[in-house]
Amino acid sequence: MNVNIMDYDTVGLDDSKNALVIIDQTKLPCEIEILSLTEQKEIWTAINILQVRGAPAIGVAAAIGIYLAAKNIDDVHYNEFYGLFKKAKDYLASARPTAVNLFWALDRMESIVLNNKDKSVAQIKILLRDEALAIKDGDIKACRSIGEHALTLVKDGDGILTHCNAGQLATVKYGTALAPIHLGHERGYKFKVFTNETRPLLQGARLSAFELHSSGVDTTVICDNMTSQVMKNGWVQAVFVGSDRIAANGDVCNKIGTSGVAILAKHYGIPFYVCAPISTIDFNTLKGEDIPIEERNPDEITEMWYKNRMAPAGVKVYNPAFDVTPAELVTAIITEHGIIRAPYLENLGAIKC
Amino acid sequence: MNVNIMDYDTVGLDDSKNALVIIDQTKLPCEIEILSLTEQKEIWTAINILQVRGAPAIGVAAAIGIYLAAKNIDDVHYNEFYGLFKKAKDYLASARPTAVNLFWALDRMESIVLNNKDKSVAQIKILLRDEALAIKDGDIKACRSIGEHALTLVKDGDGILTHCNAGQLATVKYGTALAPIHLGHERGYKFKVFTNETRPLLQGARLSAFELHSSGVDTTVICDNMTSQVMKNGWVQAVFVGSDRIAANGDVCNKIGTSGVAILAKHYGIPFYVCAPISTIDFNTLKGEDIPIEERNPDEITEMWYKNRMAPAGVKVYNPAFDVTPAELVTAIITEHGIIRAPYLENLGAIKC
Repeated sequence: MNVNIMDYDTVGLDDSKNALVIIDQTKLPCEIEILSLTEQKEIWTAINILQVRGAPAIGVAAAIGIYLAAKNIDDVHYNEFYGLFKKAKDYLASARPTAVNLFWALDRMESIVLNNKDKSVAQIKILLRDEALAIKDGDIKACRSIGEHALTLVKDGDGILTHCNAGQLATVKYGTALAPIHLGHERGYKFKVFTNETRPLLQGARLSAFELHSSGVDTTVICDNMTSQVMKNGWVQAVFVGSDRIAANGDVCNKIGTSGVAILAKHYGIPFYVCAPISTIDFNTLKGEDIPIEERNPDEITEMWYKNRMAPAGVKVYNPAFDVTPAELVTAIITEHGIIRAPYLENLGAIKC
Repeated sequence: MNVNIMDYDTVGLDDSKNALVIIDQTKLPCEIEILSLTEQKEIWTAINILQVRGAPAIGVAAAIGIYLAAKNIDDVHYNEFYGLFKKAKDYLASARPTAVNLFWALDRMESIVLNNKDKSVAQIKILLRDEALAIKDGDIKACRSIGEHALTLVKDGDGILTHCNAGQLATVKYGTALAPIHLGHERGYKFKVFTNETRPLLQGARLSAFELHSSGVDTTVICDNMTSQVMKNGWVQAVFVGSDRIAANGDVCNKIGTSGVAILAKHYGIPFYVCAPISTIDFNTLKGEDIPIEERNPDEITEMWYKNRMAPAGVKVYNPAFDVTPAELVTAIITEHGIIRAPYLENLGAIKC
């Protein structure tokens, strides 16, 4: 495929079709299929089965999704409108439990409804559209800013390891963990990027490798269990990962396997950086242990991708989608507001204000 | 499949067919296919493409293979016989580079030829058959003994994590790392075993999970990147792995990912045990860095098992088959001679004598 995925918005609104437009990420890297989703059930499913995934992209998709739900409500009285809006919001919020951006975006949208009781339902719908697009634009700006800050932490020629996909495909543009790589690449930096394939859903092999390779970055796919060897070889100067939720104390919830990468980075003396917009920081969750961890279907491990099943029928499987990396293993958290280091409770708290 | 894999020998000799008999491990867990291999090219390929794998099993297969090669040599003069034997030996030795048991077994077989120059070629062939079967029997006894020693390191109800397959399928019977689990299970111990799936060839999901589950052991398959989380959950009281070659200083070469497991075990304060017969210790290799590490085909990562390719065409791939765990991360090495702890140079050296 001669496609540069950087030419696409990962998530968008098509007013003419009243549709949420996404790239179906379950089809990558073999097919680029653009989906136009109009029904709430379709949008819920797209988030649930990871047709759209990545914490920031989920937030934008939910914002556009709830706007479309609101638009489809008849011009009833405010109270009835709010009741129906709330029901639609709760439904979309139930699509996945861990990424806080989903709830953050839906709460922002609800605030528009709550803060404009004096306006007509028709006017509120217009404000909801503006807010959804503001969330989308904010994501693009935040990611670009994260990229600029993170780029100061590495130099031309560095080896960078990443886990899962916190790239353009996880956001609207640029990505979080991959933003410094995309920006550096535009400026002629020659990074050597190692993408952990990221079992079971292979976001590293299917998505990160795809978006980096298609934009011309020197990219090497490895299995997750090769991280230690690649680090030992001296090929990695920095680790960049994204996050699905950061607790107030700096504990980082991210794709399963991230905590293992952080422990290996510490062992080999390699800095471990987390890139995320402040919408990923959950100030209401004090520590990582309090974050609900989604467990997914065992089939993802044993049969989903394979020609034949790859583990005996009937064997037990454990399939957590995320893990928590304790704050003490995190060298820095890079947000659109800059580079934040320990002590995180104070220094993250400062950007809340 | 209602099969207990423990009822099979993984590697054997069929005199009536002049054949090496193996279970085709590339077909597991979906099919149990028994192969009878008579041609040297078939035997070389079986080792090369991992139809038979696991350091001890490779050693036994090579011993039987070189016996069959010798048997097929005409009753020529000794010098000509030895020349043809040596050629066949070098050929089999080229099948894979890392597991030292391959070379150890072939050297033992060559010693029979070298030490019996005074005998007829027909007599030497009989001695070669005896030696191949002695290597096979020795493997069974060594594994059983490793199991007994290793079983003293755990207790009923313990959670045990293993990587790759160092089980019955990697030996003739019992296995190395899985020997204590099989023996304990026979005695009513209720272990909870976690098998890393072990990408790219999935020996953990396909083979360890298969042999453990089919013999009734409580077995849970996880992806390699879930090890950290399982350890953090407090579910693992000990790690047992096998080895393809142990250097004289105690550095352990084993399936790619093992060093990462060892680093995680250290981080979480979990003992990390290596189980291997002394034939796996290479006293001629002083340290792990001197062990040649096989790199395998990128297709194993990107397409081999999948319905579709799982990484973009043209992307680089790094696919080392093994890594080296430094001796300082190894809590103990369990051989048929007992439990050996640091300092390894001295304590391994002592069993050589």
